[in-house]
Amino acid sequence: MADTRQWRLASRPTGTPTAENFDLVTVERPEPGPGEVLVRTLYQSVDPYMRGRMRDAESYAEPWDVGEPMQAGVVGEVLESEADSLEAGDVVTGNLLWAEHAVADADELRRVNPDLGPVSSALGVLGMPGITAYFGMLDVAEPTPGDTVVVSGAAGAVGSVAGQLARLSGARVVGTAGSDEKTDWLTDELGFDAAINYTETDDLAGAMAEACPDGVDAYFDNVGGPITDAVWPLLNVRARVAVCGQISQYNATEQPTGPRKLGKLVESRARVEGFLVGDYQGRWGEALERLSGFIHEDELQYREHVVDGFENAPDAFLGLFEGENIGKQLVKVAERDV
Amino acid sequence: MADTRQWRLASRPTGTPTAENFDLVTVERPEPGPGEVLVRTLYQSVDPYMRGRMRDAESYAEPWDVGEPMQAGVVGEVLESEADSLEAGDVVTGNLLWAEHAVADADELRRVNPDLGPVSSALGVLGMPGITAYFGMLDVAEPTPGDTVVVSGAAGAVGSVAGQLARLSGARVVGTAGSDEKTDWLTDELGFDAAINYTETDDLAGAMAEACPDGVDAYFDNVGGPITDAVWPLLNVRARVAVCGQISQYNATEQPTGPRKLGKLVESRARVEGFLVGDYQGRWGEALERLSGFIHEDELQYREHVVDGFENAPDAFLGLFEGENIGKQLVKVAERDV
Repeated sequence: MADTRQWRLASRPTGTPTAENFDLVTVERPEPGPGEVLVRTLYQSVDPYMRGRMRDAESYAEPWDVGEPMQAGVVGEVLESEADSLEAGDVVTGNLLWAEHAVADADELRRVNPDLGPVSSALGVLGMPGITAYFGMLDVAEPTPGDTVVVSGAAGAVGSVAGQLARLSGARVVGTAGSDEKTDWLTDELGFDAAINYTETDDLAGAMAEACPDGVDAYFDNVGGPITDAVWPLLNVRARVAVCGQISQYNATEQPTGPRKLGKLVESRARVEGFLVGDYQGRWGEALERLSGFIHEDELQYREHVVDGFENAPDAFLGLFEGENIGKQLVKVAERDV
Repeated sequence: MADTRQWRLASRPTGTPTAENFDLVTVERPEPGPGEVLVRTLYQSVDPYMRGRMRDAESYAEPWDVGEPMQAGVVGEVLESEADSLEAGDVVTGNLLWAEHAVADADELRRVNPDLGPVSSALGVLGMPGITAYFGMLDVAEPTPGDTVVVSGAAGAVGSVAGQLARLSGARVVGTAGSDEKTDWLTDELGFDAAINYTETDDLAGAMAEACPDGVDAYFDNVGGPITDAVWPLLNVRARVAVCGQISQYNATEQPTGPRKLGKLVESRARVEGFLVGDYQGRWGEALERLSGFIHEDELQYREHVVDGFENAPDAFLGLFEGENIGKQLVKVAERDV
């Protein structure tokens, strides 16, 4: 029997995760049962929300078990099929494992058309992150022409798409990111109207106010913490805040504190709403169609930050919290057999 | 010429306002011009939101000017009319002054029908506070049968109505208030399912969790601060938070801080929305009709906390921040001439 490798959760992190929390094991390659397929991973996704699954606490995603393989979004190639709907050579995407090979129910996989673009984009702009940006921006933040929209974590997989969707809605878009390389990408290539490198200012509130002279009508928040504090006083009447993530808080070991925010909501009659892409499952098709259309018309740019080699998956994940990625962080696990 | 008395803003408070911030002056009684009426104040309202108007800062209500008379909701009697639509003896309500007499444009007054109930209720359950509760609960918090709804400041003018409206929507209602007399009123007379005297517990989070074993589906917040902190971890999926006021913060001299709250919104996909009754101006008639209907059917109880004498208006206002009132705080200024 052939072998395969998996990353397992070795231990739960306290604070910022480290390499010690992950364990690389070699196991027997699983065989597909009836209705299942064996998938060889081509690309594996690492995402900030996975930090929550390392914790032993109820949240919107199940905690991972210590000693067990971890789940991840994967784009892979079908090696063996015991299902009528898929055959060997098909490229598919779905929630599989941090693994070089995994079996999955064919019904839980989505076929990826390799002619439409790089298959890896099914984990980024044409996958969960892009769809998250789509519904969070268009359904929750609801930009209208002339609005000022702020996106935090704007150079990430979700933020970069969210900001461009706001621009396509006719809004003025301001992004925050953690390096000049990122802010340059936002303004020079993605069409953001302004971008703030939050690591280079000691007056974030002032920089935000300067970037948003007409206040803030919508805020798409991936980061939280001091960036949100800088946006808050600028919220206009009937502003919308779409809370997608709070990566600045994920590694906190104590309950983070900050300025109390609810009073401002009365003054501005603003709405703050958390959302999860999973709640829009029935409308993913709509999102994918529109996102592909924008890419095809050259209206939507994206970037992928690919780390090569399955053995580097934990490093790629840890890098998310260091802001190492521009665009979607991926791990390239294997070449496609063509 | 006859005289009248007015309360003017003597100085802006730092922190909790005191009697020194108010100045009682005697002035010549004003005369109505064309289209105007002279109103003799019967009842004057004092409301927590007035604290914001004492501040020299832009907010949803204009700051009062130092040395000038302050505005207030008033129920009064028309003494002289230069308008076709009103005549002497009519009872009216509107935004007038902290004054025994004031002139007003007849178009900016609403006639009060004294046969429908005590005219003072036009400043409470059938006025701004009741209408605030109506829209905040039914349009923003949106209780449905079986929901658990928490109301902070539940024994106040707004909270007591808000909680009963939630009960009438079929929800389980939990209130917080600052004395046993208040919590008894909530559970024994208003039909709240549970009430927490927050001054009598050193484990507010525990008390809240115990009172809400199925979590919190909607939260109508008048108070903010530690009470909100106790509700937050209990927010259920798709919970709604209607932010009406934050009285615990109004006298703060430094930016209040507390636990960061936005992460929980992602997990629970909850919505937090600030609102102002003024935004519903076009629908006040609907609210008044339904509120009167509930009172008529004995489904809605209310209480007024009346301080006698115009000279006591500042004390009545200051008492709001000490939690002295049960139900609507009013100042009785004069008897109606019948």
